[in-house]
Amino acid sequence: MTKKKSNNKEKEKNKKTPKQVAIPKGFLFKAVSAGIKKSSQPDRTSRPDVALIVSEYPAAAAAVFTTNKLKAAPVKLSIKAIKSGAARAVIINSGNANACTGSQGLKDAQDTVKVTAKALGLSPKEILVASTGVIGELLPMDRLINGLLKASLVLDSTVEDVARAIMTTDTYPKVVSRSFRLDGKKVTLTGIAKGSGMIAPNMATMLCFLITDVAVMPKVLDRILRRSVGLSFNRITVDGDCSTNDTLMILANGAADNSPLKDLRSDASARMQKAVDEVTYDLSRMVAQDGEGATKLIEVFIKGAKSDTDAERAAMAVANSLLVKTAVYGRDANWGRIACAVGYSGAALKEEKINIFFNRVKVVSNGRPTGKDLEAARQMAGDTVKITLDLGLGRGESRALTCDLTEKYIEINAEYRT
Amino acid sequence: MTKKKSNNKEKEKNKKTPKQVAIPKGFLFKAVSAGIKKSSQPDRTSRPDVALIVSEYPAAAAAVFTTNKLKAAPVKLSIKAIKSGAARAVIINSGNANACTGSQGLKDAQDTVKVTAKALGLSPKEILVASTGVIGELLPMDRLINGLLKASLVLDSTVEDVARAIMTTDTYPKVVSRSFRLDGKKVTLTGIAKGSGMIAPNMATMLCFLITDVAVMPKVLDRILRRSVGLSFNRITVDGDCSTNDTLMILANGAADNSPLKDLRSDASARMQKAVDEVTYDLSRMVAQDGEGATKLIEVFIKGAKSDTDAERAAMAVANSLLVKTAVYGRDANWGRIACAVGYSGAALKEEKINIFFNRVKVVSNGRPTGKDLEAARQMAGDTVKITLDLGLGRGESRALTCDLTEKYIEINAEYRT
Repeated sequence: MTKKKSNNKEKEKNKKTPKQVAIPKGFLFKAVSAGIKKSSQPDRTSRPDVALIVSEYPAAAAAVFTTNKLKAAPVKLSIKAIKSGAARAVIINSGNANACTGSQGLKDAQDTVKVTAKALGLSPKEILVASTGVIGELLPMDRLINGLLKASLVLDSTVEDVARAIMTTDTYPKVVSRSFRLDGKKVTLTGIAKGSGMIAPNMATMLCFLITDVAVMPKVLDRILRRSVGLSFNRITVDGDCSTNDTLMILANGAADNSPLKDLRSDASARMQKAVDEVTYDLSRMVAQDGEGATKLIEVFIKGAKSDTDAERAAMAVANSLLVKTAVYGRDANWGRIACAVGYSGAALKEEKINIFFNRVKVVSNGRPTGKDLEAARQMAGDTVKITLDLGLGRGESRALTCDLTEKYIEINAEYRT
Repeated sequence: MTKKKSNNKEKEKNKKTPKQVAIPKGFLFKAVSAGIKKSSQPDRTSRPDVALIVSEYPAAAAAVFTTNKLKAAPVKLSIKAIKSGAARAVIINSGNANACTGSQGLKDAQDTVKVTAKALGLSPKEILVASTGVIGELLPMDRLINGLLKASLVLDSTVEDVARAIMTTDTYPKVVSRSFRLDGKKVTLTGIAKGSGMIAPNMATMLCFLITDVAVMPKVLDRILRRSVGLSFNRITVDGDCSTNDTLMILANGAADNSPLKDLRSDASARMQKAVDEVTYDLSRMVAQDGEGATKLIEVFIKGAKSDTDAERAAMAVANSLLVKTAVYGRDANWGRIACAVGYSGAALKEEKINIFFNRVKVVSNGRPTGKDLEAARQMAGDTVKITLDLGLGRGESRALTCDLTEKYIEINAEYRT
């Protein structure tokens, strides 16, 4: 395998999380190194790989999980636990996904919950769990339990520390927060995510955790979360693979002391929805941008489709096309590949009505090349490329986010376990 | 863009078409260089890019085309022409797909047919046409017409010359032939194909041409061809993209003088079916093997599925997974990624019933890792990797062919138009 000079250093510099992250009241964090991430490089043993998010108060909780039929053990466990609509803590480990590990994997996940519950003085029912990393290997339980006991002693890390501990092939930690007012009280919503590979339609991120001090009923929280996912994580794709571990959770502990949100149609709920929409969209954008080996974010916008469903199909076909993704990497305004992808997407089409833009340069007008491919290509040097298609048939619209496909993706995924 | 030392030289050496190719009676060939392929490299102008296949006698004809809604001009034309069930000649050019070229593209394709028909003394209705190459650019008509006129003068090339002229990013020409007996007469079936990128479910090859001297009724020929496609080209995938130009044609000119095949259920038809099955399977295997940048052929075999449909879904999900394809490239027996792909394929699954093999090494037994990953990895050094999954649920079976995904794929597709 050839090794190449990474251009990710540059990327990390540009896209680092802003330093001022607001944190909702009543949450504590801890990240430790338990030696679960592989130590093939001398410094890897010291990478953080176990994290705790703990609410000081009982919190409403909601979650969305992978649609993959092979669900990892932590997903199976959390699906049960979330039914209560409440939680106090989340255990997360990176380096091992505890997926395809059978009954032993399930028992291991349960044991981590038991040990941590005892150490934190909580009930096991109040604890959610999530894992990410290699599939098909049993958790190194001794190291993980030791890590969790160490983590439970003093919860003195930052949310950024947790964001860093859940990374696998991500090049930078992803944290987004919003503060706004409800009933004259300042409330805060903060989210962290990790993604990068195996990002695909239907719950695209590997892991995303949202925490807020808003007081909200579990049912309202659940509806708000599901709506946001449809507009964010379900619209991004890196390689079309939908993982065994995809998990998105939100904990709302009410520490802001607003009057609890009970009605989805209230103004206050609308403001909460907007904040969750924004935070999940920003995080999903960061996940797409940080796709394994990516150098550019690709935003696909379809309009003029016969229906929204047609627009969604077209957007995802373009975003999933390896030929489109490699063309963007090569700064080639190769609209033929875009037209081709829309052609097999299943969306209704009339060739003579199609308009295609790279950023603001129109390369196809009513099905005919405008001859501006080189002008469009010159605009593709930046770190974001926007592809817009107007199908000219109706009012259907949709978006998809993805990234370019580079040699680095191959290198990362060919060598992942070595 | 980094340039790397290609390992394709080696590949070409190993996989060259055998020198002894049997040719059916009554077919003539010509390949010329018309300057349609890009001349960005000094020697490229001399690469053959226009070819003719001509039958000395009227021939029964059948064809299958891309399901992409944006069909290239030559596809639109050939769809009409094939309705007669007869043809005498095929015009093929590489370097320009004449796709997404509107009414001008259609007129251009018609003009190439007219000019060639006149030069060969045939009716335009007897001529099929196929193109492959860059999408969205008009054909360089002056050069193409000159090339066709030159080609029509003396039809003295070999079928291998034609196989070479239709190549785009293929690393070697693909020719397969079978001879067998019908009514005591020796008959021959010969096929050529080009593929390599944009190979996807539903008519996976870019272009494939079959010629035979068997006498057969057009309807029988059509049925035989469609059955074979379902077992060959529709079971291969390189990058999931289904092209605007995919075309598979067969011409049967009856020069072998067998008693014409009229009944699909006859022994003679069964022998013909077997030959077409074999030739298309061999060609589709070569196309998958020669996937852009590929170093290994991957054969996916699913058995024990609840139904054949489930098995097909599972096979294609595994074959399309970038994570599986990069793992094979890295010689990593990463069965977790295989299980994951089957998990999102939609096929019915029980984790505890799954068995997974790399070549003959069982890495998962009834859902549990056998710990033989390293033993399996050691067997992955060859140029073919067979992945077998037994889902343990029923009698459903299916196969898929694909190749590994390498840095070279990215390089080829990022730089295609530059």
